[in-house]
Amino acid sequence: MTSWPSDVDIAASRPMRPIDQIGERLGIPPAHLFRYGDHVAKVDHRWLEGLPRRADAKLVLVTATSPTPAGEGKTTTTVGLTDALNLLGHKAVAALREPSMGPVFGMKGGAAGGGYAQLNPMTDINLHFTGDFAAIAAANNLLAAMLDNHLHQGNALGIDPRRIMLKRVLDVNDRALRDIVIGLGGPTHGVPRETGFDIVVASEVMAIFCLATSLADLKERLGRIVVARRQDKSPVTAADLKAHGAMAALLAQAISPNLVQTLEGNPAFVHGGPFANIAHGCNSVAATTAGLALADWTVTEAGFGADLGAEKFLDLKCRMAGLRPDVAVVVATVRSMKYHGGVAVADLEREDTAALQRGLANLDRHVGNLREVFGLPVVIGVNRFPSDTEAELDVLRRRAGELGVALQVATHFTDGGKGAADLAGAVVTAAAPGTLRTAYDTDASLLEKVTAVATRIYGAAGVEMSSAVQRQLEQFEEEGYGALPVCIAKTQTSFSADPSLRGAPSGHTLTVREVRLNAGAGFVVFVCGDLMTMPGLPKKPGAERIDVDEDGAIHGLF
Amino acid sequence: MTSWPSDVDIAASRPMRPIDQIGERLGIPPAHLFRYGDHVAKVDHRWLEGLPRRADAKLVLVTATSPTPAGEGKTTTTVGLTDALNLLGHKAVAALREPSMGPVFGMKGGAAGGGYAQLNPMTDINLHFTGDFAAIAAANNLLAAMLDNHLHQGNALGIDPRRIMLKRVLDVNDRALRDIVIGLGGPTHGVPRETGFDIVVASEVMAIFCLATSLADLKERLGRIVVARRQDKSPVTAADLKAHGAMAALLAQAISPNLVQTLEGNPAFVHGGPFANIAHGCNSVAATTAGLALADWTVTEAGFGADLGAEKFLDLKCRMAGLRPDVAVVVATVRSMKYHGGVAVADLEREDTAALQRGLANLDRHVGNLREVFGLPVVIGVNRFPSDTEAELDVLRRRAGELGVALQVATHFTDGGKGAADLAGAVVTAAAPGTLRTAYDTDASLLEKVTAVATRIYGAAGVEMSSAVQRQLEQFEEEGYGALPVCIAKTQTSFSADPSLRGAPSGHTLTVREVRLNAGAGFVVFVCGDLMTMPGLPKKPGAERIDVDEDGAIHGLF
Repeated sequence: MTSWPSDVDIAASRPMRPIDQIGERLGIPPAHLFRYGDHVAKVDHRWLEGLPRRADAKLVLVTATSPTPAGEGKTTTTVGLTDALNLLGHKAVAALREPSMGPVFGMKGGAAGGGYAQLNPMTDINLHFTGDFAAIAAANNLLAAMLDNHLHQGNALGIDPRRIMLKRVLDVNDRALRDIVIGLGGPTHGVPRETGFDIVVASEVMAIFCLATSLADLKERLGRIVVARRQDKSPVTAADLKAHGAMAALLAQAISPNLVQTLEGNPAFVHGGPFANIAHGCNSVAATTAGLALADWTVTEAGFGADLGAEKFLDLKCRMAGLRPDVAVVVATVRSMKYHGGVAVADLEREDTAALQRGLANLDRHVGNLREVFGLPVVIGVNRFPSDTEAELDVLRRRAGELGVALQVATHFTDGGKGAADLAGAVVTAAAPGTLRTAYDTDASLLEKVTAVATRIYGAAGVEMSSAVQRQLEQFEEEGYGALPVCIAKTQTSFSADPSLRGAPSGHTLTVREVRLNAGAGFVVFVCGDLMTMPGLPKKPGAERIDVDEDGAIHGLF
Repeated sequence: MTSWPSDVDIAASRPMRPIDQIGERLGIPPAHLFRYGDHVAKVDHRWLEGLPRRADAKLVLVTATSPTPAGEGKTTTTVGLTDALNLLGHKAVAALREPSMGPVFGMKGGAAGGGYAQLNPMTDINLHFTGDFAAIAAANNLLAAMLDNHLHQGNALGIDPRRIMLKRVLDVNDRALRDIVIGLGGPTHGVPRETGFDIVVASEVMAIFCLATSLADLKERLGRIVVARRQDKSPVTAADLKAHGAMAALLAQAISPNLVQTLEGNPAFVHGGPFANIAHGCNSVAATTAGLALADWTVTEAGFGADLGAEKFLDLKCRMAGLRPDVAVVVATVRSMKYHGGVAVADLEREDTAALQRGLANLDRHVGNLREVFGLPVVIGVNRFPSDTEAELDVLRRRAGELGVALQVATHFTDGGKGAADLAGAVVTAAAPGTLRTAYDTDASLLEKVTAVATRIYGAAGVEMSSAVQRQLEQFEEEGYGALPVCIAKTQTSFSADPSLRGAPSGHTLTVREVRLNAGAGFVVFVCGDLMTMPGLPKKPGAERIDVDEDGAIHGLF
């Protein structure tokens, strides 16, 4: 494998088709494409909003077992499955999140698939792209500037400077901005107060951007953002600051979904990218519904493992947008199952069927949740690695048989779409329409809702929280926010809130440390465990290796 | 005039031509256009860099008298003159700065000309445009994050946290970010220190972006930015932090000039937009040289009055890029001359030839500087307002006659290009090639250079500064920065550093409060008077009036 080509070399070896041709495959008239060069376009949201969902449109959710350092490959599976469905003669489109530039220059590098299951043009997608994140940051930061200006100009709304929830955002990993004091330097430079910056993907504006169904809906949601509270704790909104119109103007172009292509020339929407902890972790509703209007199959992905990503996809995005996936693909790997069975990262390439067997508890729980709680047909997609042995794959196959779930081993990373053809066949066979089932009804109390997710999805015995948090929940309910669904921010590496508990821990307690109202996005965030909303750079940032030559070719991103 | 159509209505009444057609008029093959929709494109800088300047290419600098609240109209004159030159059968292109979003949502509204002398599409140009400012902010803020990360990870370079000059930037008016403390919250959240945010246009990265002649030159300049000093005061650069490659990668697309059109369908480059005080206040070298390679006439603008804008255009941009304007147009108005003659803003519409006569001292000084110091042919362009009387215009005409300078009254605001046809004729007649003359030689000392500008351009008796500032200058010279040209930041409303001194004050002293090294941009900034590098919002921000309707039409920008 030493001579395996890099992602960037693979991408360069595949010429891209003009984006008009990609649009044409989806029946998009060129007049509704707003092009960014020859290979990226936005599809006019106004045109898309007028289109009905195709009667035969199917939605595939790609989710995974609990993430491990070994990597699962949800994005490559989403891309590979889209390519495979197209190979089988279906009209399929992928719907994915936009990558944040923070990790690109930090530790992780670019994010647009990998190997022979990539999106193109990968460099553009990873740097600025169509400016959506910059527009979201501008809208968020205009709101923040208007808020601090309001304090400075006399504070007619009576905002309590100690009770301001809104933070500013940047799309960079910058830990020194987490906790800051602003407004220093004397009376002409604003009102001093504590605050901080989050990364763009952690902002409520990002979550709103991804959940809005139209520009009017976007503006209304932006107006509902609770930015601060008064001394009597009553909420102050973005609409109170008269900021939501200008914010929506800043986002008016961004909300049209971005169209790109896979290496095999199949269409992919890449639009929006909220965190999967503090927010719901899926691409925009606009992109997913565009797929359902234009293609037979829309393959989409939700962040982290199924306990976080799929749960939020179903309980938040699908509930709000009136969607239901026809089938869920749970991506698993031999390596990550061994990790959940207790194997150290350094030993994951060694065959260990016993550890693998133990680790399957993680897979079982995720599959069970999707089938029993959410009532979804499930297919297991094993993302094959070179070190996987047949004996190990057989352990996985046997378990799938016991569960009565289709399992296919896929090799899209090395083989592109044809490597996922069997998986695509299983997906087509398994897909079945139905009614959306959720983990809880919204008319339950906020406490009942978080408890339902903890016990039904995480396997917890229950939920605990301080009396201060309980009072906060009561206040939200008194203010009329009790009917909102819940968004739980916990570690992605375990079903529990303890990142070190592998497999499928049971009987644990979910401790809620803090609750936050996201009235614009339309959910209440329950913070359970450490929540990182502004990452830091590592000792040797990836940025040090990134360079551009005289001809504009960018190196070191992937 | 009550029924005069708004700028946005005028723009909407003029259909835009496809940007390919605009490019074709300049001989740009479509393959070298990177389109943003149908009406905006970047022209590939790699292709442009290979083109020679046309033998007959002429460069017109549009500058003005000292700015007053009455407004002079440099941008409308630049657009009108470009349209007029095209009407006269010349191939002319405008080269202008990109507007910052800060003022758009603050007090000033959009900036892309006005009336019948506008750029199109004006809303796009004023909001995000092609993402250049977002890319500049991202590059600047990545550098800042790498710097604070370096402190946090052990500070191997020995940076003195009290001597960090680099600030973060945002493209928003946000006074509360001027003076801040970052890195609070304990040892995992960085190293606490004082800093602040500037607006993007005030950043050295913006100045570098506008002065770079190629991607390689850009990267080198970025690497030379002095971000901080050690305890022994020795400089630490962006290259020391290994940040310049990634910064250049973030700017690799942005450095290609943006092409749009005037209302009359003539080409205009709109690219870069540094402040005219702390930086040099002109569009990018890339855009100006693109014009000189592709058109017969390139009409460009420099910020503020000629004492700041034209001086920096000539002493900084032209000197560095090997340019020389063939003619300078000094924009003046009857109203602003009356203002300089002592008339209050409220009374400017009343005829007052005596005050006008007094105010001409300001025009005389600017014209004299351009002719005598810089050796440029000059034309006076009077931007006519409805309240101007013939008697007043005659006073202006007489003075031009006495000065031996052509003067033409232009009505492009109401009449478009044909309203500036006489002015264009005078420009064509006056233009003459020559050798660039500057206000000082770079081999003079830094003190001699600032003194030359103060005495020769501002009419000052001399320069004064504290011994601390003098020591700082000596240090710059010891470090090898003594050969850099100087960039003086002072009020734009007076030749002196006192904003209230109208007309043409003489014998004043220029007090230097602070000096800053911009080693990447390649100049030393002399701060004389208050320097605002992060504006604030007014009591009632323009943003409150800005809105977008369901169809995406944005209102309230203009």
